[in-house]
Amino acid sequence: MSETPVTVLGLGDMGTALARALMKAGHRTTVWNRTAAKAEALAAEGALTAATAGEAVAASPLVVVCLLDYDSVRQVLEPLGDALSGKAVVNLTNGTPQQARDLAAWAAGHGAHYLDGGIMAVPPMIGTPAAFLLYSGSPDVFADHRAVLDLFGESHHLGEDPGRAPLYDLALLSAMYGMFSGVLHAYALVRSDGVAAADVAPLLGRWLTAMSGAADGFAQQIDSGDHATGVVSNLAMQSAGFVNFTGSAGDQGISPELIAPIGDLMARRVADGHGHEGLSGLVELLGAGGPGAVQTR
Amino acid sequence: MSETPVTVLGLGDMGTALARALMKAGHRTTVWNRTAAKAEALAAEGALTAATAGEAVAASPLVVVCLLDYDSVRQVLEPLGDALSGKAVVNLTNGTPQQARDLAAWAAGHGAHYLDGGIMAVPPMIGTPAAFLLYSGSPDVFADHRAVLDLFGESHHLGEDPGRAPLYDLALLSAMYGMFSGVLHAYALVRSDGVAAADVAPLLGRWLTAMSGAADGFAQQIDSGDHATGVVSNLAMQSAGFVNFTGSAGDQGISPELIAPIGDLMARRVADGHGHEGLSGLVELLGAGGPGAVQTR
Repeated sequence: MSETPVTVLGLGDMGTALARALMKAGHRTTVWNRTAAKAEALAAEGALTAATAGEAVAASPLVVVCLLDYDSVRQVLEPLGDALSGKAVVNLTNGTPQQARDLAAWAAGHGAHYLDGGIMAVPPMIGTPAAFLLYSGSPDVFADHRAVLDLFGESHHLGEDPGRAPLYDLALLSAMYGMFSGVLHAYALVRSDGVAAADVAPLLGRWLTAMSGAADGFAQQIDSGDHATGVVSNLAMQSAGFVNFTGSAGDQGISPELIAPIGDLMARRVADGHGHEGLSGLVELLGAGGPGAVQTR
Repeated sequence: MSETPVTVLGLGDMGTALARALMKAGHRTTVWNRTAAKAEALAAEGALTAATAGEAVAASPLVVVCLLDYDSVRQVLEPLGDALSGKAVVNLTNGTPQQARDLAAWAAGHGAHYLDGGIMAVPPMIGTPAAFLLYSGSPDVFADHRAVLDLFGESHHLGEDPGRAPLYDLALLSAMYGMFSGVLHAYALVRSDGVAAADVAPLLGRWLTAMSGAADGFAQQIDSGDHATGVVSNLAMQSAGFVNFTGSAGDQGISPELIAPIGDLMARRVADGHGHEGLSGLVELLGAGGPGAVQTR
């Protein structure tokens, strides 16, 4: 049995890493990039290069798209139109749920089978056990090409709504930026007192890993709408203690801007009479509905 | 050899957990709380109760203090004055580096041996392998009572400056609040699209754990002042992509306030000509000195 030929459109660092994972597994891999120079290294490693996106798409039944943004995807795919008919299109370009839904509808209109995906990895992680990818859209594309997708990292299918993978992707990346905000604040704080960031890093990594487990408890409280049961440290206590964070930053000449917003939300939530509850209740101040808004479990 | 008698001042959830860990290991444990009712459960478990803080301090050579804040600590300890002479005082109350330094100076003036500490755990974690505690101040107190301190969790001594433990404590907790900010934003986002938080939680926990490793790289870049070498995803790219986070939040009716500040800093840093660098460079916008400000490694 021969491996499925695969085309990769877009050869930034991520697209290049995806193409390499395919080639390593023995797939005939056709690559295309708007600026052809980026294909040269891959060609030297055995990739087939296509002069146009149309030629690249014609070469394989499975087309992996990894471009800068959805505008780029539209610019590349729209001129191809019905040439996509019958193709499996796996779009790993970063975007929003609505962009994914709109593109899926357009692709369906041209006979393509569309799967959207979000890559939870940086390029060097592709093909390692640390990488995982989130997919949504055509269950058939996912089932038919699962073995190929697993070459990139662990594959998760989140349902037929093509917007679901980008939704999760945005959620996870947002959470990461929150974590990085806290990490950068922490380093700025210790540096202001003459402590090297590297001295704090091991304890910080350990602490964040331990505390990431709290996210499970928050999830249960958010889904139930009960933010009070089982709370170990209530908002009134946490809000009162938060002055140490902004205050110490001020003492040290550090802007508290990266961590201040959660302190402001805590104060608002306490003022609203929810001081006995836990941190999870802050989601109620962020908008878009209470537990009744959730349709699925 | 008999175990060291220990006194615990302050019986909130944390003080109570500390006292239980001592009693479990066979220490004669004397407890005191401003409102005596909180001592009753511990008395029933075998703790000795003291009618006054002075009586409690007189009962043991080692005094563990775990009160609401430094104002409370001052109110309790200052009337005791020279009754603290010769005592080892381990203060685990949350506060700022300056508060710890001031209290250490006051304690030294009364002949007490002062060790400051920060507890990296919630009360249910005390005495488990997940807990760790950061200490700074008297190396003698730490060495003499290490076995007792290890009953609470893994003990780390960070140096003689009593402000160092609270500095690390504030840094780690700040980072945690950043992470929680991201987690709460993530849950608000998925909920707005009808997805239960519990459906996202396992992937979120895994992703944050994987990404917490980036903190080591940030530390190296911050200490060296070189934010560009080895960058996988530069600030210009990340800043351009950040519009998806604020934009999707807006699309979904979610306030982006918890994650917006890092996006603002990225845009400022790119505008300042650092778009080729990585995220670690954002610390340079938070104030209080560059790499030259760091005295230790």
